[in-house]
Amino acid sequence: MNVANFKTCMLFLILLPVLFFDLIPDASADDGYRLWLRYDKIQDEDLRQDYLHQLRQIHYAGSSARIEKAKEELQRGISGLLAQKITFSDEPGNGPTLIAGTPESSPHIRSMELQGELRSLGEDGYLITRDRQNNIAIAASRDIGLLYGTFHFLRLLQSQQSLQDLDIKSAPQIQLRVLNHWFNLDGTAERGYAGGAIWQWEQLPDYKDPLYTDYARANASVGINGTVLNNVNSDALILTEGYLEKVKALADVFRPYGIKVYLSARFSAPIEIGNLSTADPRDPEVRRWWEKKANEIYSRIPDFGGFLVKANSEGQPGPQDYNRSHAEGANMLAKALSPHGGVVMWRAFVYSNEEPEDRVKQAYNEFTPLDGEFRDNVLVQVKNGPLDFQPREPFHPLFGAMPETPLMMEFQITQEYLGFATHLTYQAPLYEEVLDADTYAKGEGSYVRKVIDGSLDDKQLTGMAGVANIGTDRNWTGHPFAQANWYAYGRLAWNPELGSERIAEEWISMTFSNKEAFIEPVKEMMLASREIAVDYRTPLGLHHIMGYGSHYGPGPWVDEGRADWTSVYYHRADSSGIGFDRSTSGSNAVSQYHPPVKQQFNDIEKVPEKYLLWFHHVEWDYELDSGRTLWEGLVHHYYSGVDSIRRMQDTWESVEGYIDEQRYTHVARLLEIQEKEAAFWRDACVLYFQQFSGRPIPDAYPEPDHPLEYYQDPLNKYVPGL
Amino acid sequence: MNVANFKTCMLFLILLPVLFFDLIPDASADDGYRLWLRYDKIQDEDLRQDYLHQLRQIHYAGSSARIEKAKEELQRGISGLLAQKITFSDEPGNGPTLIAGTPESSPHIRSMELQGELRSLGEDGYLITRDRQNNIAIAASRDIGLLYGTFHFLRLLQSQQSLQDLDIKSAPQIQLRVLNHWFNLDGTAERGYAGGAIWQWEQLPDYKDPLYTDYARANASVGINGTVLNNVNSDALILTEGYLEKVKALADVFRPYGIKVYLSARFSAPIEIGNLSTADPRDPEVRRWWEKKANEIYSRIPDFGGFLVKANSEGQPGPQDYNRSHAEGANMLAKALSPHGGVVMWRAFVYSNEEPEDRVKQAYNEFTPLDGEFRDNVLVQVKNGPLDFQPREPFHPLFGAMPETPLMMEFQITQEYLGFATHLTYQAPLYEEVLDADTYAKGEGSYVRKVIDGSLDDKQLTGMAGVANIGTDRNWTGHPFAQANWYAYGRLAWNPELGSERIAEEWISMTFSNKEAFIEPVKEMMLASREIAVDYRTPLGLHHIMGYGSHYGPGPWVDEGRADWTSVYYHRADSSGIGFDRSTSGSNAVSQYHPPVKQQFNDIEKVPEKYLLWFHHVEWDYELDSGRTLWEGLVHHYYSGVDSIRRMQDTWESVEGYIDEQRYTHVARLLEIQEKEAAFWRDACVLYFQQFSGRPIPDAYPEPDHPLEYYQDPLNKYVPGL
Repeated sequence: MNVANFKTCMLFLILLPVLFFDLIPDASADDGYRLWLRYDKIQDEDLRQDYLHQLRQIHYAGSSARIEKAKEELQRGISGLLAQKITFSDEPGNGPTLIAGTPESSPHIRSMELQGELRSLGEDGYLITRDRQNNIAIAASRDIGLLYGTFHFLRLLQSQQSLQDLDIKSAPQIQLRVLNHWFNLDGTAERGYAGGAIWQWEQLPDYKDPLYTDYARANASVGINGTVLNNVNSDALILTEGYLEKVKALADVFRPYGIKVYLSARFSAPIEIGNLSTADPRDPEVRRWWEKKANEIYSRIPDFGGFLVKANSEGQPGPQDYNRSHAEGANMLAKALSPHGGVVMWRAFVYSNEEPEDRVKQAYNEFTPLDGEFRDNVLVQVKNGPLDFQPREPFHPLFGAMPETPLMMEFQITQEYLGFATHLTYQAPLYEEVLDADTYAKGEGSYVRKVIDGSLDDKQLTGMAGVANIGTDRNWTGHPFAQANWYAYGRLAWNPELGSERIAEEWISMTFSNKEAFIEPVKEMMLASREIAVDYRTPLGLHHIMGYGSHYGPGPWVDEGRADWTSVYYHRADSSGIGFDRSTSGSNAVSQYHPPVKQQFNDIEKVPEKYLLWFHHVEWDYELDSGRTLWEGLVHHYYSGVDSIRRMQDTWESVEGYIDEQRYTHVARLLEIQEKEAAFWRDACVLYFQQFSGRPIPDAYPEPDHPLEYYQDPLNKYVPGL
Repeated sequence: MNVANFKTCMLFLILLPVLFFDLIPDASADDGYRLWLRYDKIQDEDLRQDYLHQLRQIHYAGSSARIEKAKEELQRGISGLLAQKITFSDEPGNGPTLIAGTPESSPHIRSMELQGELRSLGEDGYLITRDRQNNIAIAASRDIGLLYGTFHFLRLLQSQQSLQDLDIKSAPQIQLRVLNHWFNLDGTAERGYAGGAIWQWEQLPDYKDPLYTDYARANASVGINGTVLNNVNSDALILTEGYLEKVKALADVFRPYGIKVYLSARFSAPIEIGNLSTADPRDPEVRRWWEKKANEIYSRIPDFGGFLVKANSEGQPGPQDYNRSHAEGANMLAKALSPHGGVVMWRAFVYSNEEPEDRVKQAYNEFTPLDGEFRDNVLVQVKNGPLDFQPREPFHPLFGAMPETPLMMEFQITQEYLGFATHLTYQAPLYEEVLDADTYAKGEGSYVRKVIDGSLDDKQLTGMAGVANIGTDRNWTGHPFAQANWYAYGRLAWNPELGSERIAEEWISMTFSNKEAFIEPVKEMMLASREIAVDYRTPLGLHHIMGYGSHYGPGPWVDEGRADWTSVYYHRADSSGIGFDRSTSGSNAVSQYHPPVKQQFNDIEKVPEKYLLWFHHVEWDYELDSGRTLWEGLVHHYYSGVDSIRRMQDTWESVEGYIDEQRYTHVARLLEIQEKEAAFWRDACVLYFQQFSGRPIPDAYPEPDHPLEYYQDPLNKYVPGL
């Protein structure tokens, strides 16, 4: 058509979208449901055309369910990002083609002679590279690698990377990359803050909510390959026939995405649903019951992953009820699973309710003697620190202390002690701090991550668990930034050396914007947020001073109930000073670490200040590196924590307009809440500890708004009902 | 442009939308979030053009918050339905105009001299009519009427009604049209089956989720004008300062939509949060405390609606703890609220845990003596039937028995006894059955609805409450058809005579499709669904034979715990027959009804068969109207109930393709579950009662798949965990 008419026509074309978006309710808004898999059209037209040019032809070899999912995702991604429907060609065509396949499924890939390289990348690894004809090739040993490679390729487009000189090799350093869901069967989520359980048990197995597929896509996109469906405080009903049918339905949805299903097994299930009189692991009937149960499960779910077990911990039943060891209990289950290739993930989170011993020492004391006694399909799942997911803990001394046993890392993604779904706290730096800690088990460089990835003690079976922060909230995690913790956990489980900063960049660019002016300040805000969360809660190694039960607000005054559930048990504040003496002259927890670490932690002058009060009872006038006294330093941390949140608010305001108004506003309001609540933490803790220090709040800092009694009054809890 | 080019251009225009929908994830799918306010573009182009022609100019007089909401909604509706942005003119223009206003705000409306008519329609009523110049006029006495009128007008477009000869007069027959949310402060929902509480307390007051606005829009669209935010089993914390700030934030969102906020008040709050030693309504300090609390609430929320109270019922505290009557308790609260114009909604759902008396008689016995003793801002809130929201109950005898007291109807929208969010049960016929029941309190025609709308006893203060089925599920109610129960409740609260069929037609056309071929069969399915639900659960007047605790599956064998919480207490099955003798020769509950009703219910030959076993213990061989024996009839009802669900499935399959695949599939799968669970109910009940009847299941019916023990085994509950 002639130019004039072309213009008229273009006018239509320009107007029509506007008209269209009117038809979509709140097209401007974004509820965050799509997570980091957004695939909005690339606005840089040159770049979009360049991508289109390089993706004129696409060939995926093979036809497995996983290949189909990879093709579906590529279709979804490209039709979104490039606003172009794609058709897959049966053969690599002439001219630039995106070719995906395994040496078995694709002659072209085979001809590239990558077999050796692929073998070195293992079962889940993949290559994204250019061949001699300058085609883009995604190659892997198995179809699952092609699915992972496809998500990686889409990430390149989402973050607007160049496709020139592609030379990507990627393989997970950890074998089992698992989410733990603390979902109860009644639909509630223990320590879940983004709504309830996402499994609609009453509608399964008949109805499979489309959300289950999106859940699987999100997990596969970061390499998560396992999910424990139910709470570690488990209900035996999950092992009944009716439930296993429902579990099978979920497993069928997840399988094409390479995700295995696991269940938390209640140790006393043989009594509760098996009509046996005991659950003693030495009882032949009990052993037979578990073997039959395993057979029953695998007859439905051939690739069932195995059991996660919380035993003899916080009231859960376990082998010690029959004077058997954790190893005996774990091995009984492992024996039942092993013919089918299943594993047992046995939690080391145990502490006695009689035992007067320092609680942080008990797991080490109970488990190290059992090293070497576990069957080879058992992993011992150890929390990152020896207490319980505090804002900061030193690494767990079990890492490096059980060379004969595969140790699995348990991180908490849900923010039980970090402000639920209300506070912005990017946890990758916390995970990284632990993974990079040096146990010195085999001399310098014996990093925790080397224990976890099996390289330190040459373990084949390796794993990492993350206690999920996912719930029924429309955006999955409540706080829009809490999505980043799910993302970061998955990326670090794949590659523990990836680094918090790079992960933040990836996530921001995919989730919000590719504009540098947005990415840089928001990234800085995220990277700082964890230290800030420590500052206004538990600076200088303080721990477990939160509100009783809720674990949300401050509660340094909590002194009732069993000792090791109180706050005073941990902070030990008195007129002379504050902190828990775990040195050789105290509880001697330091001796659970290897000598160089022990010596560092044991020496008040050498211990990193971030762990000072974890290991030492320190006088109020003790001089810190900063030159401040301990009291002044403590006060300083609390106040600077709150001030830093004000800076986070400034940062966020500075990027208004770069993203949709819905998510912008949500985050802005949540930061206001966080600032108020951080001030509440600060004032409550400073006033409480001041009773012992007897020292004034330095003039530089404003006085708290209320007297201590106000903060202690349960009616002033800022989250009543929790 | 010339034709050829025009064609080319049109080609673009045709293709572009396709391209666009590719950009919208799952454009084909529909998650049901928009409820009945969908506003999808009208496909009938002639009709769309006709509407556009008649809406060329739009003038809304006035500028209140409610006018703004009305204009927003009209904007949203027309830009969707007619794919046209609209601009509001400051004056009625020349040529056809849609004019909305009150006689005060609009000279044009004033000139129409509708004042008399409007006065007769009261504060919330409205007119939609044509003026002499053939403009469309929406007129009301107050802006809220214009908002209601706007929603009505949009409903006309959504259901594709003609706009010729408009002559609509509408006014609510009931003053307080309230939702009761049984939301707990911890985010759970008692008897809620669509996720948890939708109030995000921890993010309020700072963050107001956009969902709150959509909730208000949906309610206003059906005339609901009040919401009780928290569970009747109440936590006193809701009355603390921190919470009231959050309540205020919600009230601010709802106010422009004409929705008042109410709270469930815990009678013992003066003790729990007021540091008083008693909650005795005669104690001056207690009275002062409530007066101060009322002042505190109204200082934040000037239009606060008032308190809902569950007192001395199922363990809740109340005035009887101090030997005071329900009237004394209610009046104390009413006195505190009355200076501010608030009301007390005092529940009559009471029964003693010592009292051996037939439970269904107790509310009547306790409340009728108090008639006339309540302050004039108290309503007594009475459940539709005397027991507890069973699939079928006779109307509550309190209706017509307290002429001096405003009685408020309490319906249950959430399907506690009707299959949760899993079974398709349209409840309008249940509501209608009760509203149309004749109490004979003042002779024939003394319908329950006349008690409720105040016309029978000339009451000014009137109300209806619905226990909501709303939760955090993306589609609000879990089952797509459960949305219809929310809709129907609101419409019947506005006009109790509207009729189940018309309401179903409205809802279907707005929610799914305007095609007759869809509306007719789906309407028939909905209208039949309630009787079907009765047939496979509690036919012929059976009641309270559900599973203990969960209230979901069958449990006719439940015989442990307090007598009036068991099933055997209610069905009284034995070798001679089955049913609860409430005749004059039995518990004499029949005598709580007015003579003509009493005589009918008391006479086994006259009582409607649907209530037979509610009022009589009947011999197994008693001959029913059908000629069948009672046993055969009972079996017949159970089997035909299940068969009817198979027909519902056929109906649904027959309309596949008329609606989006997501909602179609969801309903199809849920109907499969319902069919299985109905069969479970049938088999469990038939086998259980057969033990007493000692009679065979007639050959015509297939034998149950399992023995009775199977259905009684808790491990075979088809909703484990509940």
